[in-house]
Amino acid sequence: MSRRAIALPGFQDVVAAAARIEGHAVRTPLLESGLLNERLGGRLLVKAEVLQRSGSFKFRGAYNSISRLGRTRRSKGVVAFSSGNHAQGVAAAAELLGVAATIVMPDDAPETKLAATRALGAKVVLYDRASGDREAIAAALAGESGAALIKPFDAFDTIAGQGTVGLELAEQAQALGATLDAILVPCSGGGLSAGIVLAVNELVPGAAVHTVEPEGYDDWARSLAAGRRVANEPAAPSLCDALLLKEPGELTFALAAAHLGPGLVVSESEVRHAMATAFRDFRLVVEPGGAVALAAVLAGRFDCRERTVAVIASGGNVDAALYAGVLTKEAARPAR
Amino acid sequence: MSRRAIALPGFQDVVAAAARIEGHAVRTPLLESGLLNERLGGRLLVKAEVLQRSGSFKFRGAYNSISRLGRTRRSKGVVAFSSGNHAQGVAAAAELLGVAATIVMPDDAPETKLAATRALGAKVVLYDRASGDREAIAAALAGESGAALIKPFDAFDTIAGQGTVGLELAEQAQALGATLDAILVPCSGGGLSAGIVLAVNELVPGAAVHTVEPEGYDDWARSLAAGRRVANEPAAPSLCDALLLKEPGELTFALAAAHLGPGLVVSESEVRHAMATAFRDFRLVVEPGGAVALAAVLAGRFDCRERTVAVIASGGNVDAALYAGVLTKEAARPAR
Repeated sequence: MSRRAIALPGFQDVVAAAARIEGHAVRTPLLESGLLNERLGGRLLVKAEVLQRSGSFKFRGAYNSISRLGRTRRSKGVVAFSSGNHAQGVAAAAELLGVAATIVMPDDAPETKLAATRALGAKVVLYDRASGDREAIAAALAGESGAALIKPFDAFDTIAGQGTVGLELAEQAQALGATLDAILVPCSGGGLSAGIVLAVNELVPGAAVHTVEPEGYDDWARSLAAGRRVANEPAAPSLCDALLLKEPGELTFALAAAHLGPGLVVSESEVRHAMATAFRDFRLVVEPGGAVALAAVLAGRFDCRERTVAVIASGGNVDAALYAGVLTKEAARPAR
Repeated sequence: MSRRAIALPGFQDVVAAAARIEGHAVRTPLLESGLLNERLGGRLLVKAEVLQRSGSFKFRGAYNSISRLGRTRRSKGVVAFSSGNHAQGVAAAAELLGVAATIVMPDDAPETKLAATRALGAKVVLYDRASGDREAIAAALAGESGAALIKPFDAFDTIAGQGTVGLELAEQAQALGATLDAILVPCSGGGLSAGIVLAVNELVPGAAVHTVEPEGYDDWARSLAAGRRVANEPAAPSLCDALLLKEPGELTFALAAAHLGPGLVVSESEVRHAMATAFRDFRLVVEPGGAVALAAVLAGRFDCRERTVAVIASGGNVDAALYAGVLTKEAARPAR
């Protein structure tokens, strides 16, 4: 196996990213519910990234990445591949920075994500998730035009940008007088988890960081247990469209594996319950993939009693019909 | 007509209320959507009071009022009457301050509001909206026990507390580099509108403040036009359960009428569309009554073109089944 020198971001890169996104990204609130805290017997803090520009944390990494491109590079535009949230994040950041964006998206992405990406002025190129290779398609597009490829997770500036979630979280928890015992992070490629590890290791070294994934897509949980990157077997489609990657990123795993875990895994039923709880107790619209960390707490897969635990509600881009169906189904269930 | 000397709050009372609620109330974010701004041809800022503790702005006035009671008074508890949001606000504030609370609520209040009020430790006394007099019931309860009556809108400390919404809004708009041309406020008794007038007259004197009400309950619009308080005729029940009062408050009208208006009125169909837009573009759960100001903008009842307009999303306590129904109905409509 050949060894390459890979530049990995550190804490100072997260601090620099925070300065770059300031005034452009939303400093999302850290919320709690007295009622829910009583029920859990602990203190639960929810970082509401659903309120971020473009509806997910992805805007942070995208804006950080594009803002670091030079003028000549920017003039050639940017290309990205994404199941939806990175697409919108890149499209929103590119629009703000006056850069043309082309996004490669699966043709089964939620309609709301496709429509929003187009509305933000990006050109959308569709591919078939089963047969197409989105990385190859995006690389070819970038090769033709000279556009910069804005990677969704496995890139220095993306990880540093997502790390600003951890930076804010640490500051906001301190302002609330809360000492964080653990942070639970929805995880797919690992950009958000790795970024948060960078910030938290420096600012709240006593806090554990756990990845959370949906059943069938638990590559991080198994990789962290194995100490090496392990891929998912092909699985049935998941409700959590934002978390369907095959294996952890190379950089993200190298950067964060030693500080993460054990990884947590939640069922679809637990995700639906978390979405309904976010609706009722936090008045937040959270998409399935964005609700897995909250689901882990509510389902007792992580014990919050006598502890202070933060979860990231990482995205809120969900089709109205699906969301209405989840609420209706949950309302019909016996109370938990 | 006898004249009474009534103490009315001023700007400094709002500032004092802000100091009292700091660290207890959420400083709710002021959000915007680039996509929606483009569609409107102006700049729309949404003050997300749905993220306030207890799910509406009512916590502010309730906390301000109860925190001003002396120790002896507090030991006798508090009583309030409310269709739901003031109930939860008082219950949440009383719980935080260690004060017993009894709330008089209509027996047709949304189940979510009844359940949440009880879960916050308050005792709920139900009455029939058609035949009962909630003010008399609450006054009798207060008379028996010596508990303090925490009024929903027509009281000095309540108005000053709700005014902190305007204080934050003015500060946050300035931080965004936005000069407010107008502020649209969901209005029933007028506590929020009057409080916002107090703050805005001092901090953003150039901004107009407009009340917004649902059809059939447009007593403020007609009262502002008439220059005196006018009551609603009995009307069909409205989707906007939080905005069903008969006439403007005495203090709130005296305080704010000269600075308010003209009052705006929206239809139920416009409210449903606003709820769906808040879902999709802001990932916020907004209840019908909390969505009327946003509805006024989206329906073109207030022209935002080339202007900067703030709307208060004043509450997010809505039954899941009703909400799912609104999203489903809106998703089936042709795009506007």
